[in-house]
Amino acid sequence: MKVGILGGGQLARMLAEAGHPMGLSFLVVDPKPGASASQVAEQLVADYDSEPARDALADCDAVTCDFENVPAAALEALAERVPVRPSAAALAAAQDRFVEKSRFQSLDMATPAFAAVDRRPDLLAAIDRIGLPAVLKTRTMGYDGKGQVVLRDREDLEAAWQRLSGRPLILEQWVAFDHECSITVVRGADGNKRFYPLSRTWHADGILRLAVAPCPNADRLQAEAERMAGRLADDLDYVGCLTLELFASGNELRANEFAPRAHNSAHWTIEGARCSQFENHLRAVCGWPLGDPAARSGISVLFNFIGELPEAASWLAVDGLAWHDYGKTARPGRKVGHATLVAPDREALDAARAGLEDLLPSDLRGALDGILPRRA
Amino acid sequence: MKVGILGGGQLARMLAEAGHPMGLSFLVVDPKPGASASQVAEQLVADYDSEPARDALADCDAVTCDFENVPAAALEALAERVPVRPSAAALAAAQDRFVEKSRFQSLDMATPAFAAVDRRPDLLAAIDRIGLPAVLKTRTMGYDGKGQVVLRDREDLEAAWQRLSGRPLILEQWVAFDHECSITVVRGADGNKRFYPLSRTWHADGILRLAVAPCPNADRLQAEAERMAGRLADDLDYVGCLTLELFASGNELRANEFAPRAHNSAHWTIEGARCSQFENHLRAVCGWPLGDPAARSGISVLFNFIGELPEAASWLAVDGLAWHDYGKTARPGRKVGHATLVAPDREALDAARAGLEDLLPSDLRGALDGILPRRA
Repeated sequence: MKVGILGGGQLARMLAEAGHPMGLSFLVVDPKPGASASQVAEQLVADYDSEPARDALADCDAVTCDFENVPAAALEALAERVPVRPSAAALAAAQDRFVEKSRFQSLDMATPAFAAVDRRPDLLAAIDRIGLPAVLKTRTMGYDGKGQVVLRDREDLEAAWQRLSGRPLILEQWVAFDHECSITVVRGADGNKRFYPLSRTWHADGILRLAVAPCPNADRLQAEAERMAGRLADDLDYVGCLTLELFASGNELRANEFAPRAHNSAHWTIEGARCSQFENHLRAVCGWPLGDPAARSGISVLFNFIGELPEAASWLAVDGLAWHDYGKTARPGRKVGHATLVAPDREALDAARAGLEDLLPSDLRGALDGILPRRA
Repeated sequence: MKVGILGGGQLARMLAEAGHPMGLSFLVVDPKPGASASQVAEQLVADYDSEPARDALADCDAVTCDFENVPAAALEALAERVPVRPSAAALAAAQDRFVEKSRFQSLDMATPAFAAVDRRPDLLAAIDRIGLPAVLKTRTMGYDGKGQVVLRDREDLEAAWQRLSGRPLILEQWVAFDHECSITVVRGADGNKRFYPLSRTWHADGILRLAVAPCPNADRLQAEAERMAGRLADDLDYVGCLTLELFASGNELRANEFAPRAHNSAHWTIEGARCSQFENHLRAVCGWPLGDPAARSGISVLFNFIGELPEAASWLAVDGLAWHDYGKTARPGRKVGHATLVAPDREALDAARAGLEDLLPSDLRGALDGILPRRA
């Protein structure tokens, strides 16, 4: 079977890496030559909705995407010729933050208070209702903290409005969460669903830097997270992996946003789960039975590399560490790779952390110590 | 870094699959177009010792092999231009069964009695010394049970001689073993060595069909296996993964043969060990630190698919099962794929076996029941 992928970034790359052992082949469509995935799979350099792209993708057995902002029209035209999973409608549901949060509400999923903001009076009314601090965001095309401004008090309003107005906006309540976490669900075309354990996430400057899975002390959160992600996936008649990002406060979860694709917070599943998010996405896309999302015994820690990769050899010297180099050139703010440490128990984890001591930047070390206090 | 591989079979394919996440790229040289590895890596269709092959490989950062019968001269010429790991000498040491077993002896590794047989009187003298039953084998180019005949009594002699004579032969004592097992060692260019747990193997018609790892009840065998494989790897100044195949009788081990490459009996390490044989081979070849060969918790069972692949979906429905399709066309006796079941404990293993009940041929099911009696 051949799977077509719209977008050739690291997610497409890791999909291909997961599919090759199973005998799948891939065609990646990306307008930029030399995309990350092109180093491991065939790339067609073309616009997503160009005729060569449509024809080549229609020759595949199934088509999926490595990012959510694929033009819906391109996907709908394709879907008449080849199974597109997840569907154009499911992708569209994640493209607009207001539509997304309205859906959460309609599905009885707790979410921070929010309001659509088109004109300046909308913003003032929204602040009166939601209060401050709050976050003003573009409704579309935002990711990794881009296209958003935090409003701490009314003095921040003018600058934020200057920066973001002219596009449809959303004001969201600022949530004083204990921590962030994500749940990934995989859903088959037959409606069967399986859930990964919650992954605890830590961001800096809006970009994921660290994830720990299974999320420590999250037994009471897992069921509610599964209820939410499951309702969402069913409502979208979703096929593939979907990740729901959540704010946790005490035993309460609030849905922040979802990604209709493989997600950075679940990269630990490549080594840390019995079946990775990438393999499970492909199983769903190909109509195969879903794999077991359970964590292998122990705990996984995911380190994201932003901007540039550290020297591989020092990291590889740590037992249990797996190295992922996306084959990208260095650029500030760019996700260029990650490493996952899988430790069978806390003792092995602490030993590995000692080996990482000089390699981790201090903010990351501090974040990890906060999530998993050392025992020694 | 770019790694060149001589040979484009499933071992080259799985090396590429293991190297892609780490950012390695590959050039596979194989005279047959459309080799298994060509589906996941660039293939140069050329003879191993042709000029285009030599030039292309010399442009790589390091070169390795996916089979042991690479012409030594081709490798030696290459080694003047690029690091070749393992070395031509290490490969040559495995190409001739008599040389191989003589080395075992000189390294104080127990091995079945053997004798070189060039002429018919040699065979008669060898039988007098070693006794019957015994196995008459070609000294070179034998694999998967090819090029060998079992001599049960003197009446078998004539037919065996007709079939094999004209080439250098070896007569080997027939060992009444309890079971067969293999150990894989990875050795770095700095001489550092790490050992995988013993894998218990089961063959039919000379071809591996089943492996269970870690080998049950093998605590007392592991140390001796490590001693033997370690001495051999050091003696060869070996770089990369090497597998030593062993006969086990009680607490005694006898070395049968070794493979200077990734080995079928260690395919379970892809999912079942903290760092797979393929990744570790590449780490050694690239001069990186070696990974941890320890098994993840639980037990792994490897099923080889010979001749043709069964239907994937039924197998994938078993939790914990990983599917490997080498992308080959079906042909009797050909290794076309494998599946690995990794179960965290015996209970999960028995549950998975229930799911496999109707999928396993009866000889394989019987062999597995013999190695891992069911608890229910």
